Formats: sequence, C-alpha cells, structure tokens
Amino acid sequence: MSVIAELATELAKLPGIGRKTATRLVYHLLKQPAASVERLALALQAVTRSVRACSTCGNLTEQDPCEFCADQRRDAGLVCVVEEASDIDAIERSGEYRGVYHVLGGHLSPLDGIGPDDLRIGSLLHRVGNGAGIREVIVATNPSMEGEVTATYVRGALDGHGVKVTRIALGLPVGGDLEYADGVTIARALSARRDMGG
Amino acid sequence: MSVIAELATELAKLPGIGRKTATRLVYHLLKQPAASVERLALALQAVTRSVRACSTCGNLTEQDPCEFCADQRRDAGLVCVVEEASDIDAIERSGEYRGVYHVLGGHLSPLDGIGPDDLRIGSLLHRVGNGAGIREVIVATNPSMEGEVTATYVRGALDGHGVKVTRIALGLPVGGDLEYADGVTIARALSARRDMGG
Repeated sequence: MSVIAELATELAKLPGIGRKTATRLVYHLLKQPAASVERLALALQAVTRSVRACSTCGNLTEQDPCEFCADQRRDAGLVCVVEEASDIDAIERSGEYRGVYHVLGGHLSPLDGIGPDDLRIGSLLHRVGNGAGIREVIVATNPSMEGEVTATYVRGALDGHGVKVTRIALGLPVGGDLEYADGVTIARALSARRDMGG
Repeated sequence: MSVIAELATELAKLPGIGRKTATRLVYHLLKQPAASVERLALALQAVTRSVRACSTCGNLTEQDPCEFCADQRRDAGLVCVVEEASDIDAIERSGEYRGVYHVLGGHLSPLDGIGPDDLRIGSLLHRVGNGAGIREVIVATNPSMEGEVTATYVRGALDGHGVKVTRIALGLPVGGDLEYADGVTIARALSARRDMGG
C-alpha cells in the first residue's frame, strides 16, 4: 500500500471521516508545508505519550491530580458526575460551575455488555465515603435513555451514603424554539415548571 | 497550551474540521490504543517525507516517474489534463482511461493572483513539443467557471502544436434525475446531444 493510501486508511478510521473525506484530507496535507504536517504528527504522539486519567476523578490530564482536582479554589464538596471527560469542557464553557468532577467513562449499556463494573462507579462511592466532605453529587449524564438509566443507577448506588444527589435540569434549550422542540423535551419542561412568584 | 488543546488546534486547521469536531476527535483518539494513534502519526510523517511531484506529469508520488508515467501499457500519446492530483483518482475509478496525465496544480484565478505561470502549463507545452509522440490532449479541468476559463486558456496555448485538443463532455450525470438538474447542465446536455442513429 502506498503511503498516501495508508494515511487515507488511518484518517478514515476517525469518526465522521469517510474514505472520500480522508483522501481529500491527504491531498490537502500534501499541499501544506512539511513542518505543519510534522506539527500534527508530533501533537498526536505527545497526546498518546503524556495524557493519563486523573487517579481521583478520571479526567484526562497531563498531571495527576488533574487541574480541577488540584485547584484549591474549587469546592471539593460538590462533585459533578459526567459520562465522558469531554463533557467537562462543555460544563466549563458555561462558566457557572465551581465544584469538581467525576468521569464515569461511559454509560450503562447491557446490549454492549457495559455494566456498572465497567464504569467508574466504585471509585465514586469511595470518594463519597472516605470522609473528604462531599456534600452533593450532581448527576450530569446525558439526557438520553442510557444516560437516564445510568443516572438512576448512580442515584441508587449513593443511597445511604449521606450525600445529597441531584440531576441537572432537562427542559427547553436557551435560544431554542418551542415550535421545533420534540414532545419529550416539552413534556420534561412542563413537568419541571417552576413558580414565577408574584 | 496543554497537549490536548495543541492537538485540537492542529486538527482544527484541516478543511471541514471546526474547533468542536477537532475536540471530539482528540477525545476519540485518547480512547484508542496508543499504537493506533502512533500509526496515524507515522503515516503523516511518511507522507511528508516520501511523497513528491512526478517530474513528468506533476502527480503526487513516491517514485519518479509516477506509476502512470512509468506504466508501459499505458498510451503515452494520450494526455489527460487535470487541475489536481486528486482528480486522477476520480478518473481512474471510471476504469475507462488508459492514457497518461498532466496535473496543472490548480486553475486560473486572477482574483487570487493565480495566472498561467503559476500552473504547470509550460511543462505541458514542453511535453507536447519534445517529440514524445503526443497525439491528443484531453482537457479535464472542473466544469466550473474557473475550470472552463483554464480549459480555454490551455486550448489556446496548444494552438499550432499539431496536437488534437478535446474537452471532457458536460451533461447530465449518470443516475441523476432530470427534474433536479440545474438549467446550465441541461442546456449543456441539450447542445451536446448526439444522434442515436436508427
């Protein structure tokens, strides 16, 4: 196989990149200065060599504990449980959260053979139980069926640990349009309605 | 900048990959075995180090002359002129063409400052004029405005070189639907209509 075909094959393994796009990317890269392609290759190698899971929360990081667990200004008594490390970025973008995180590493999915033991639930219970002063666990798994099942399981596993367990609110997205919202979202938004006072 | 952010920045420089997709790709790569990411990095390096332009036709290749120019079974008297090396793949997929190629390296685009001297037109004239026995030049630049202008320019440049110059046919795509074809394509297809005999 030529090196061009080989690179296209490797690129086509990435999610959302088919064979055609991969070939287009290869020809694009061939038009770039060699130094710029080299930078991409080195960045790939750096990531595989220096990124590890934080031993406390499971976030992907170059330092252990990760930047969030190590940050003294953060509220270590508030833990936000997410499915993937990439979800942390999304929550950080809100600029509203000042607690720490716990990454499950996926969601429960019996059909794919993913049970509770395959997720970092044991280490969550250990964190809650070891007297580190955790007051509240916010379950921020995805608002999908698997995410809801996982949230319910986590809620049950934390029973009797003397910690408050909350779920992020589901409802209409800000800036969204009621007309285009799906029925399930509207039903959730209605049942979670709150008193406006007055 | 963290190595994760750095890789996302490099990936986001690729065409069609925005910042969000780049971040998603990084997290995908972090879930893969290190050896698989390493393979992608090495494939990138191999491409920049060993791929060059063919000194005859301009195709991107690991060997010079390229596989098409070196293939004795191909008709060296028939040259297909394309804008980019990637167009060769598309023509080869048809399985119908047995001649050789000539890559211009783009199309005329005065607004972008790309004139005839920036394309490999001089080397095409040299190939045609050096007694290598070229009978016909098929101009297969894109059916876009720039491609048409470039085709006309190439046609003019070959005047008086004693070579037949043809243009690939424009018309309705096979498997397409007349109802959804644009007017310009239909006009071209009508004016290029051919006698069905009988």
